[in-house]
Amino acid sequence: MASSPIRKLTPLADKAKSKGIRIYHLNIGQPDIKTPAKGLEALRKIDRTVLEYSPSQGFLSLRKRISEYYGRCGMDFTPEEITVTTGASEAVLFSFLTCMDPGDELITTEPTYANYLAFADVAGVKVRTLKTHIEDGFALPQVEHFEELITDKTKAILICNPNNPSGTLYDRREMQMLADIVRKHGLYLFSDEVYREFVYDGMEYFSAGHFGELAENVVLIDSFSKRYSECGIRVGALITKNKAITQGVLKLCQARLSPPLLGQIVAEASCGEDQQYLDKVIAEYDERRKVLIESLSAIPGLTVSTPHGAFYAMAALPVDDAEKFCAWCLTDFCYEGESVMLAPANGFYITPGLGTNQVRMAYVLKSEDLKRAAFLLGKALEQYPGKVMR
Amino acid sequence: MASSPIRKLTPLADKAKSKGIRIYHLNIGQPDIKTPAKGLEALRKIDRTVLEYSPSQGFLSLRKRISEYYGRCGMDFTPEEITVTTGASEAVLFSFLTCMDPGDELITTEPTYANYLAFADVAGVKVRTLKTHIEDGFALPQVEHFEELITDKTKAILICNPNNPSGTLYDRREMQMLADIVRKHGLYLFSDEVYREFVYDGMEYFSAGHFGELAENVVLIDSFSKRYSECGIRVGALITKNKAITQGVLKLCQARLSPPLLGQIVAEASCGEDQQYLDKVIAEYDERRKVLIESLSAIPGLTVSTPHGAFYAMAALPVDDAEKFCAWCLTDFCYEGESVMLAPANGFYITPGLGTNQVRMAYVLKSEDLKRAAFLLGKALEQYPGKVMR
Repeated sequence: MASSPIRKLTPLADKAKSKGIRIYHLNIGQPDIKTPAKGLEALRKIDRTVLEYSPSQGFLSLRKRISEYYGRCGMDFTPEEITVTTGASEAVLFSFLTCMDPGDELITTEPTYANYLAFADVAGVKVRTLKTHIEDGFALPQVEHFEELITDKTKAILICNPNNPSGTLYDRREMQMLADIVRKHGLYLFSDEVYREFVYDGMEYFSAGHFGELAENVVLIDSFSKRYSECGIRVGALITKNKAITQGVLKLCQARLSPPLLGQIVAEASCGEDQQYLDKVIAEYDERRKVLIESLSAIPGLTVSTPHGAFYAMAALPVDDAEKFCAWCLTDFCYEGESVMLAPANGFYITPGLGTNQVRMAYVLKSEDLKRAAFLLGKALEQYPGKVMR
Repeated sequence: MASSPIRKLTPLADKAKSKGIRIYHLNIGQPDIKTPAKGLEALRKIDRTVLEYSPSQGFLSLRKRISEYYGRCGMDFTPEEITVTTGASEAVLFSFLTCMDPGDELITTEPTYANYLAFADVAGVKVRTLKTHIEDGFALPQVEHFEELITDKTKAILICNPNNPSGTLYDRREMQMLADIVRKHGLYLFSDEVYREFVYDGMEYFSAGHFGELAENVVLIDSFSKRYSECGIRVGALITKNKAITQGVLKLCQARLSPPLLGQIVAEASCGEDQQYLDKVIAEYDERRKVLIESLSAIPGLTVSTPHGAFYAMAALPVDDAEKFCAWCLTDFCYEGESVMLAPANGFYITPGLGTNQVRMAYVLKSEDLKRAAFLLGKALEQYPGKVMR
């Protein structure tokens, strides 16, 4: 399992706060956006007297709403092709367990979402990674780099699009390249699309589900957590046209009995929220993104990769070691009673030594707080004794 | 994974219902008891505007309530020794993944709760079973039978007490025997105690957690599902004094981010329900148990094992094959527009050929319905062409 540098920093942040220092958290992926009113209203209106199990595959009524949502996204999935999971986390785990055997190999890019590794570990699957680089906005590597990693053990490629931690959005050419590789080599394509809505700069979104010819290969991982700012309800979905996968996943779903009842009620009601809710949320993130990128760009020696999706940005800092710097910000730095907490990027890299000068920032704070956080980061970099100008 | 004869019967039951036949469900473990009013009230009063992630180990406030509850049960566990899980199912899976490696062996009894096998399969663990018998109320086998199965690969013993599917409650002698085996061979003891409250006939309950000398060996599996009739909230707990296990489990918890927020709120409030609620529920189940056992005892050729815990009873039927008989009840039998659905016990046995004339009945219906269901079962046995008198 990947190290968790963020978790090591948490006690340092707690200590700083206990001294009265205000910490701006750029390290977390918990949105501050309000959950849709319709979801909260449905919660208050629950008049059941027995909080019973729900069906293992999830409520049919919810799966119908998800099917309709996919229709609006230009993808045709029936409720039978949709499995409600306990968060996208469970969808990832159940995909791995169903599609791969211990000893099989999975290809993904790095930096990556660290929890994938924990689930691969549970499934006994070896993760092989392709490096992506801040210099070209963490674009997907060329086809030959993928093919170099493919062995007779390779069963699947895993992408996160828009990407956590990089904020990268894969374009039509990149998705077509993946489609071609997956078909040529008979692989599964696991596509984690939980940030699907959060796309900026008028760019077009290409889901793995848009490639009709990949119907049997593609497993979509989805979640209500980010779309409707309801991470706590633990409702996600696994979506595929491959019947054998749906059946295999159902066996695991039956073993864990059912997904959360209350979360499903909130999720279903949230689907009824009108598009204005999402439009406003996306506009809010876009505004924050611009504020953050603009503020960071003014910091000497800092390189930021402009994200086109999700709500994360990766930056390379002019420091000896980003993890040390992030700890130092909490233990030794304070400006006008305030400091900033960042996520060291080494937790997102698998190959040791990669990304050691990088950090991930989540723009889930209000614009004025983001501005202040970037300002504090600049001040911290001025004072940090381990500063390195490249 | 175990076969699921109940699931094969479900479409038959649906078909019978579509013909207007009323089916009495003795096959399910979903209580009809009301969720505590305090839990439902807390649900309606949720005034959060963002349904956020909760801590990976679960809310501290909930873990404190669980710790207090254990204190009342005569067990001393701090909130740090308690991990909130997504149902007991996740506690079982995370125990297996944390304490055992692929290729290790786990000993349990059969009949057993079939979902354990699915989780053992995920963990790559081999399950070895000891037969228990309806003739002696599914009592634990003698120590020598356990020792015959113990190899250098054996890592743990798993019990469910009170037992699903048999309703058996292990007495002090049986628990002491387990304690001795576990200590002598340095094994873990996974004790699924989700039916802990449901103990009848004035019998005393001995938890694995009552054996102080086993502190490092014991992992308790717990849940709010049955205790408070809130199966849908998906809140369970994994409880151990073994710090290495808690730490290993925490890594898995962090990978899946957090247990359900809303369920935890309901669970915490349910803990505030006074003892009267549970006393009434237990008295209700006890009444139903007596009604069911009395009604079944009047059926010629049927042997029922009187359960002392949980809300299940196993019975041996005078039939060629219980699975065939259960299907026949749904496809060919109808008395005054009604029939009965039972769970064939072969789904609870691992060794092929065991329990083929047995069924499991859950007494989660009202007493009058249980009486009628038993009456219908008697009528069905009279008419069933594959009747066998032993």
